[in-house]
Amino acid sequence: MEALSEVSKVQKKMGGSIVSPKGFHAGGVHAGLRYSRKDVGLIYSDVPASSAAVYTLNQFQAAPLKVTQQSLHEAGKLQAVIVNSACANACTGERGLQDAYSMRMLTAKKLQIEETLIAVASTGVIGEYLQMDRIAAGIAEIEFGQSTDDAEGFQTAILTTDTCMKSSCFTASIDGKTVTMGGAAKGSGMIHPNMATMLGFITCDASISTVALKKALKEVTNRSFNQITVDGDTSTNDMVLVMSNGEAGNEELHENHKDWDIFVELLTKTSEDLAKQIARDGEGATKLIEVNVKGALTNEDANKVAKQIVGSNLVKTAIFGSDANWGRIICAVGQAGVEVNVDTVTIQLGETTMLLNSVPQVFSEEDAKKYLESDTIQIFVDLQYGNGVGKAWGCDLSYDYVKINASYRT
Amino acid sequence: MEALSEVSKVQKKMGGSIVSPKGFHAGGVHAGLRYSRKDVGLIYSDVPASSAAVYTLNQFQAAPLKVTQQSLHEAGKLQAVIVNSACANACTGERGLQDAYSMRMLTAKKLQIEETLIAVASTGVIGEYLQMDRIAAGIAEIEFGQSTDDAEGFQTAILTTDTCMKSSCFTASIDGKTVTMGGAAKGSGMIHPNMATMLGFITCDASISTVALKKALKEVTNRSFNQITVDGDTSTNDMVLVMSNGEAGNEELHENHKDWDIFVELLTKTSEDLAKQIARDGEGATKLIEVNVKGALTNEDANKVAKQIVGSNLVKTAIFGSDANWGRIICAVGQAGVEVNVDTVTIQLGETTMLLNSVPQVFSEEDAKKYLESDTIQIFVDLQYGNGVGKAWGCDLSYDYVKINASYRT
Repeated sequence: MEALSEVSKVQKKMGGSIVSPKGFHAGGVHAGLRYSRKDVGLIYSDVPASSAAVYTLNQFQAAPLKVTQQSLHEAGKLQAVIVNSACANACTGERGLQDAYSMRMLTAKKLQIEETLIAVASTGVIGEYLQMDRIAAGIAEIEFGQSTDDAEGFQTAILTTDTCMKSSCFTASIDGKTVTMGGAAKGSGMIHPNMATMLGFITCDASISTVALKKALKEVTNRSFNQITVDGDTSTNDMVLVMSNGEAGNEELHENHKDWDIFVELLTKTSEDLAKQIARDGEGATKLIEVNVKGALTNEDANKVAKQIVGSNLVKTAIFGSDANWGRIICAVGQAGVEVNVDTVTIQLGETTMLLNSVPQVFSEEDAKKYLESDTIQIFVDLQYGNGVGKAWGCDLSYDYVKINASYRT
Repeated sequence: MEALSEVSKVQKKMGGSIVSPKGFHAGGVHAGLRYSRKDVGLIYSDVPASSAAVYTLNQFQAAPLKVTQQSLHEAGKLQAVIVNSACANACTGERGLQDAYSMRMLTAKKLQIEETLIAVASTGVIGEYLQMDRIAAGIAEIEFGQSTDDAEGFQTAILTTDTCMKSSCFTASIDGKTVTMGGAAKGSGMIHPNMATMLGFITCDASISTVALKKALKEVTNRSFNQITVDGDTSTNDMVLVMSNGEAGNEELHENHKDWDIFVELLTKTSEDLAKQIARDGEGATKLIEVNVKGALTNEDANKVAKQIVGSNLVKTAIFGSDANWGRIICAVGQAGVEVNVDTVTIQLGETTMLLNSVPQVFSEEDAKKYLESDTIQIFVDLQYGNGVGKAWGCDLSYDYVKINASYRT
C-alpha cells in the first residue's frame, strides 16, 4: 500500500552532524549537574544565522523557552545556543527566569557576542533550580570545534533517559550550491509533542530569510516532530530550533524561489529522521512503530488517526508482545475524533491484510508473529473515505518503560 | 483541601447487589465460550422497567449496542439483559449484528417476553464471531434467582481481565418509601470511557419516568464512569444500563419531584462506587488514584484537568514507584487544554503540599514516599482561578499492565 518513493534531490550524508554545514561549531562539557556525563552543550555559528523555533504548547512553558523567545523576537537572528541537561528549569518562577537569563549572559560574555543572539534550552527534572555555580563554570570551560567529537560532545550533553545520541545530516543542491543541513536531538519520555517534542537543534548553511524559515519550520514540524509519541505527555520544555547561516553562498531563499521545495524537503528529511530516532529510542522501547494512514477526508485527519493508533497503550503493548491484535487498531481509529466510514476500513500489518473493507480476514498468526518480532513495525490503514494521507511514529510499551519511569528522580 | 462531607440521605447497603432492589433476579452460566469461568449472564425484572442507557462514543460501536438501542427505542422499557464475555462481537459486520439479534430472540423465547424488552451486551476480543451454538445452549440452561449466589453468578459471567467482581448497593427514602439501587460492572482495560466505560448494569425499584431516568443517567455518568481512565483507550462495547421497575411503590419520580435530588444522589453514589472499583482493578493496578481539582473556571474544566492527570502514563508510573514527582502533575495540568493561571497553582499529595501558588515547596521525601505506598492515593489540585470542581479516578501503571496486555489474545 506504500507508494514507491520518487527520486529525491535530497541526499543523506552518512556520518554528518550539526557541524557539517559550513561555519558551525559545537561542544559539550561535564559541569557536574549530573554524576559523570556531559551536561552542558553549545552550538556556535561563525556569523549570525536566520533562525526560527517552535515551542511546547504546554501552558507551563519553562523559563529557558521564554528567554529564547525574547532573543528571537529582538534580533530575528541567532549565533549560538546554550543547553543543559539534568534540570529542566521549569516551574521555577522568577528565580528560574533569572537563571535562564544568566545562562544567556554568561554565554554572551564567553563568546563576545550580543545576548540576544543566543538561545537557551534546558531538559531534566521539573521544579528544581539550576545549580548556577556549576553552570557558570561549565560555560567558562566548554570547548567547541568542528570535528565529529565536538558534535558528539554536544549530542551527549543534551541527553536525559535517552540510550543513544540522535543526529542527522542531509545535503541538496540549491541555486547551484551544495547546501548542508545537520541536526541533533534528545527525547525519550514525556514525548507527545504538540508542536515539537523534546529538544531538536538544526543547523544549515543555506541563505534564507527568517520569515521563510519560520514558515517552513512550522509546516515541517507538524508532520514530523509533532507526529511522534512515546507516552502521551507533552513536556514543559519542548523546542525545535533551526539556524541557517548563509555560508553556502546561495541566493537568499524565500517561498517563491525555484528551489524552495528542495529546501522544504531537506528540512522534512532531517526532521523526520530525527523524529524517528527519538521514537525508536522511546523509554523502554524495543521496536519502532510507523503508522501510515490514507483515505482520510484530509491530511490533518489522517495524521490524527495515525497518531491515535501509535499512541494507544493497548496497541503498544500488543506490539511489544508480538500479538497481532488488530482489534485494538480499529478501536483506536474509532476514537480518533475524525469522520470515517465504519464499513470501508482496511488494516494491514506489514504485508498481511487483517481487515478488508471492515471485514476480518483469515491470516497466518505465525507469520504475523514473526513480522512483529522485527525491530520496525509498519501499520497501514486505508480508510477509503477521501484523499488525506498521514504518518506517525512511536514505539512499543515494555516493562522497561515502567521501570524507567517508576523511579526517574531517584 | 477536601470539604467535609454532608450528612447524606443515601446509605450504603453492605453486601447488597443487583438483586437487592425488589423484583430483580440474576444468574450466570458457563456456556463454554471460555475455558472454565461463567461467561453468559442474565438480569430479569418481574415487570417491565423504565430504562436508559449510555453508549461508547467509539465510532466502531459493537453489534449488541445497536440491538440494545433498538430495544430501548421501541419500548422505552426493558425487562431483561443478556450478556456474554470472551467475545466482544465488535467489527463483525452483518453476521455479528444477526448474532446479537439471535441472542435477544433466544432470551425472549426463554423468558416468554417481547424481544424489545431485552438488552444485549458483549465484552471480550474484537473482530471474532460469537460461537452461537454455545451461546444458545447457555441461554437455554441459565438459571436465575434472588440470592447473593445468583447475583455473583452474573457478576462473574461479565468479567474479562478483571481480578474481582464489582458490585454496589445503596438505599434511600424517597417519597416515604425505601428505594434500593444495585449495580454490577466489569472493566479492567481499554478504560477511558467517553460516556460510560466498560459494562455497567444498575437495577432500582423506584418508580420513575423513562425521560427523567435518561437525563439523570447522562448527567451522573459524566461525573462518574466518564471520569475514570485506565489506559486512555475507549472500547467499542462500553455501555451503562439502568433499569428501574417501580416495585418500591413510590409516586413516579420526575425532575420536579421534591425527592428528585435524592434519586440523583442515589445514582451518583452507586455509579461512583462502581467506577472506583473499576479504576482500582485496572489492569495491573496496585493502587487507586483519586484526583480532586478545584478552582477551575468551570466544573467541566476541573473534570478535564483531573482526568488528564489521572490518565498520564508518567504520573501513573511515578505513583507505581512511590516517587513524589509532582512535576509530572503540573505538566499534565498544562496540557489539559483548559485555561489556567500559571502562577496560582497549588498541588497537594495526600496532606503534603508540594507546590503553593506555583512555587515549589520543601517537603519530606520520606513522608511522601510512605504516603505513596498506601493503596489509595489522593491528589489535590487548586487552580485558584474560578469555582469549578471535579474529580477523576484511575490507577498506577505497573509491570503487570504490560504483561497482561502484551499477550491478551494468547
